[in-house]
Amino acid sequence: MKLDAIPVVAVSAPGPHAALTGNAGVVLREIAEKVRMLVDAGEASTIDLLAMPLTAADLDWLRESLGNGETHISLNAGGESRLDETSCPGVWWVTHHNGQGGVASAFIEVAVVPELVKAPIDDVAAGLDRLNLLISDLS
Amino acid sequence: MKLDAIPVVAVSAPGPHAALTGNAGVVLREIAEKVRMLVDAGEASTIDLLAMPLTAADLDWLRESLGNGETHISLNAGGESRLDETSCPGVWWVTHHNGQGGVASAFIEVAVVPELVKAPIDDVAAGLDRLNLLISDLS
Repeated sequence: MKLDAIPVVAVSAPGPHAALTGNAGVVLREIAEKVRMLVDAGEASTIDLLAMPLTAADLDWLRESLGNGETHISLNAGGESRLDETSCPGVWWVTHHNGQGGVASAFIEVAVVPELVKAPIDDVAAGLDRLNLLISDLS
Repeated sequence: MKLDAIPVVAVSAPGPHAALTGNAGVVLREIAEKVRMLVDAGEASTIDLLAMPLTAADLDWLRESLGNGETHISLNAGGESRLDETSCPGVWWVTHHNGQGGVASAFIEVAVVPELVKAPIDDVAAGLDRLNLLISDLS
């Protein structure tokens, strides 16, 4: 399928997408700027989606526009966090849930890898101590 | 529960764990050395589990000893890959499946973050081109 054969959703038009405010397009432009910063300067950044004037329809449109990528991460520290790469590599849709399963926060993270996935080196060192204890019990 | 109250599996002993060869303990020591390299020198490394003389029971014992961590990653590029952090931060159990769902390879990756999760910067740049195309269609 050619790119120009894909129907384009006019975000500012009324009709079947009446709940769209046009703000999702603005966020999409901001994401593109941040991806440019990542490519040009290696600089990672985030956008707090719940702090933006976006309706549920805007969020759906944004998510659909960004598409679904290959990498999906779940992380459980208290509530569950989901970090889904979009079809734009380096653009991650991050959702943190509270203990009751509700959405506590939602971000776009523009980064080679989301910060939360990286094991803090202090934790790695503490884990090594436990590993050495386990090994000393073997012999 | 105190640490010394946890029953220790004697890997070299016969009996209920007869299929254990003792090699899993050797691999566990190698993992600890590699974690030490990560902590001291920031150097990441991998161990090819299928290239080691490990029985299925050895692998089960190793996996159980390393425990289950907070971060779980699935990645689909052809076959599915699973990258599960163990309870030792920075020690990842990585399994690649072939198109038929069988295990094609299995690794221990000792790293702050598994290499495969990082978006290659060339892919990020290509994604930016697509994003800009999408944005130019909005106006």
